[in-house]
Amino acid sequence: MLNFSEQPHKRKNLLTGEYILVSPHRSKRPWQGQVEDLAPDDRPQYDPKCYLCPGNARADGTRNPEYKDSFVFINDFSALLADTALDSFDEENLLIAETERGICKVISFSPRHDLTLPEMEVGEIAAVVDLWQREFGDLSKHEWIKYIQIFENKGSIMGCSNPHPHGQIWAQSSIPVEINKEEAQQLSYFKKNNRTLLQDYISLELKKDERIIVDNAHFVVVVPFWAAWPYETMIVSKRAVPSILEFTEEEKVDLAKTLQELTIRYDNIFATSFPYSAGMHQAPVNSGDQAGWHWHMHFYPPLLRSATVKKFMVGYEMLANPQRDITPEQAAATLKQQETVHYKSKKR
Amino acid sequence: MLNFSEQPHKRKNLLTGEYILVSPHRSKRPWQGQVEDLAPDDRPQYDPKCYLCPGNARADGTRNPEYKDSFVFINDFSALLADTALDSFDEENLLIAETERGICKVISFSPRHDLTLPEMEVGEIAAVVDLWQREFGDLSKHEWIKYIQIFENKGSIMGCSNPHPHGQIWAQSSIPVEINKEEAQQLSYFKKNNRTLLQDYISLELKKDERIIVDNAHFVVVVPFWAAWPYETMIVSKRAVPSILEFTEEEKVDLAKTLQELTIRYDNIFATSFPYSAGMHQAPVNSGDQAGWHWHMHFYPPLLRSATVKKFMVGYEMLANPQRDITPEQAAATLKQQETVHYKSKKR
Ligand SMILES: O=P(O)(O)O[C@H]1O[C@H](CO)[C@@H](O)[C@H](O)[C@H]1O
Ligand SMILES: O=P(O)(O)O[C@H]1O[C@H](CO)[C@@H](O)[C@H](O)[C@H]1O
Repeated sequence: MLNFSEQPHKRKNLLTGEYILVSPHRSKRPWQGQVEDLAPDDRPQYDPKCYLCPGNARADGTRNPEYKDSFVFINDFSALLADTALDSFDEENLLIAETERGICKVISFSPRHDLTLPEMEVGEIAAVVDLWQREFGDLSKHEWIKYIQIFENKGSIMGCSNPHPHGQIWAQSSIPVEINKEEAQQLSYFKKNNRTLLQDYISLELKKDERIIVDNAHFVVVVPFWAAWPYETMIVSKRAVPSILEFTEEEKVDLAKTLQELTIRYDNIFATSFPYSAGMHQAPVNSGDQAGWHWHMHFYPPLLRSATVKKFMVGYEMLANPQRDITPEQAAATLKQQETVHYKSKKR
Repeated sequence: MLNFSEQPHKRKNLLTGEYILVSPHRSKRPWQGQVEDLAPDDRPQYDPKCYLCPGNARADGTRNPEYKDSFVFINDFSALLADTALDSFDEENLLIAETERGICKVISFSPRHDLTLPEMEVGEIAAVVDLWQREFGDLSKHEWIKYIQIFENKGSIMGCSNPHPHGQIWAQSSIPVEINKEEAQQLSYFKKNNRTLLQDYISLELKKDERIIVDNAHFVVVVPFWAAWPYETMIVSKRAVPSILEFTEEEKVDLAKTLQELTIRYDNIFATSFPYSAGMHQAPVNSGDQAGWHWHMHFYPPLLRSATVKKFMVGYEMLANPQRDITPEQAAATLKQQETVHYKSKKR
């Protein structure tokens, strides 16, 4: 039988239909490459120069309110604009382009400059979940918006430009590449089986219990069988709903608990503020049928073997195929071993 | 008409069929995020601790010969192994995997520890091109090898684990994800038009002359209309050949010249050793028909606005869609302005 922890192999990502390459024997390789700078982790509760702290001025001069939990505003440097005129371009069917409309928002998770999700109380995280739900609902009221990406870049090595805990929402007029892939896979599975792909996948993972990290009333956290990043995980709702709009109060609190537990486990692996990009994948809006879509949230953390050595998705990965060294099962074992109390709160 | 330098828009990548998002108006955004460490650029010609320098010992104890130009060997920490047994795994059509066989090699470009491609003579680069061609030919003699990825990771921010100038070759038993995409696009175009996609694309680019960086007897360098990375480029052969195997002596020297000129222009942009991942895309081998395949080489450099500020392909990009700020036309203009004499040679 295929020996996952010894033999190089590839695994199929059910959500994209694409394969990833696993090289389990390569973990022993010495590292002489780049070591990341650790940004000092002793931020003040309030930073007068931070454009996200309460009461401070932003790029356009607007002052933030003295907000008490989370706070949302239009990104002062939005990648997409709401007033872009519809237009397209086609030269000999070789140069093909079209304009894209959108709305980009920033969500501050907390008035406190020094916190991160794993250091916040469940109630505070639940306020963020509430805001996500509200924003998703409001944005989808614009008929022209077809897809809403809710995400967070955490840590400077993930391109986060400000350590104040915050996330982003990009809502846009067409369906992005990754969503097209996931839609095709989920829809074809649903048509064939009349159950969502993730419903059946999660049932199987729960039965096997080899890659499950969290399992509570309403959510499951799993290291996907096809994870590409070393400690990649996915939160999946037990109920097969197409978007966050469907979550009940109870589910929202459970999602907050799940987020807290997962991110605490992450921080505890290397006793560091664990960087990642994370985001929800949800059904497109205002585009008819949402069949097959099952809400889930991906976590893509880059760290590999320490707080300062990350996995590089470079040459071979960019040109040919994503590749990983430690297996998803090894990563799951490490995540399961972690305590659910944050390493910093024990130091106090 | 669509205003490429003002309106947010998306462009179609003809080789993958996927779109990229362009936000030209966003270039003005301030940067407070991560700034890269510049590795000191004053390496000795010979480093006694480098496993690539002539005469030195490698991880397994083997000693490198006293080589005079380029030198190739099996990667001591290969991600793929030649003796992996064929096997596959399928649980309920949800957990799907199969073993992958392969051969991973390392190519030292020069005995000199302190050089990089742009600092080497054309004759020395031509020796590397020769070796690539020979290796491609030799590796494809293994019936079980279906695809050969020749690439280079340059610079520590691109995951390069040793500054000694070198590249890699991963040859493997199945076709990687990106190659599948490019094959589908190139083949369908060829069937319809009886010319390769890149033949027609390059003709149009030469006619427009807005994104062409180098144009010599046998090669063209273009910033693709659909470039995702800030200074992404592509070298395309004027002759529509499926792989490096077909290149004549004259073409190989011309490729060496092209590589030298392109990488010198890169280094001159920020007067720094310009990091990138680069690699050739060529027809699969031992898999029948190579119709539609047209040799080309991608350069994916991460730097955006200075030697220390790079573009992060993170949250939105990983979860939804690749995104860029400066337009391909702006990048092309900057690349065209550069001198073709290396900034360091002028200092001497
Ligand atoms: O040069 P190395 O150490 O083999 O490794 C580098 O290139 C490989 C192929 O792109 C990647 O898988 C590694 O993440 C990267 O660090
Ligand atoms: O808007 P920010 O946080 O400065 O920008 C960050 O997230 C964006 C969305 O993933 C990326 O396009 C940027 O490259 C990254 O630096």
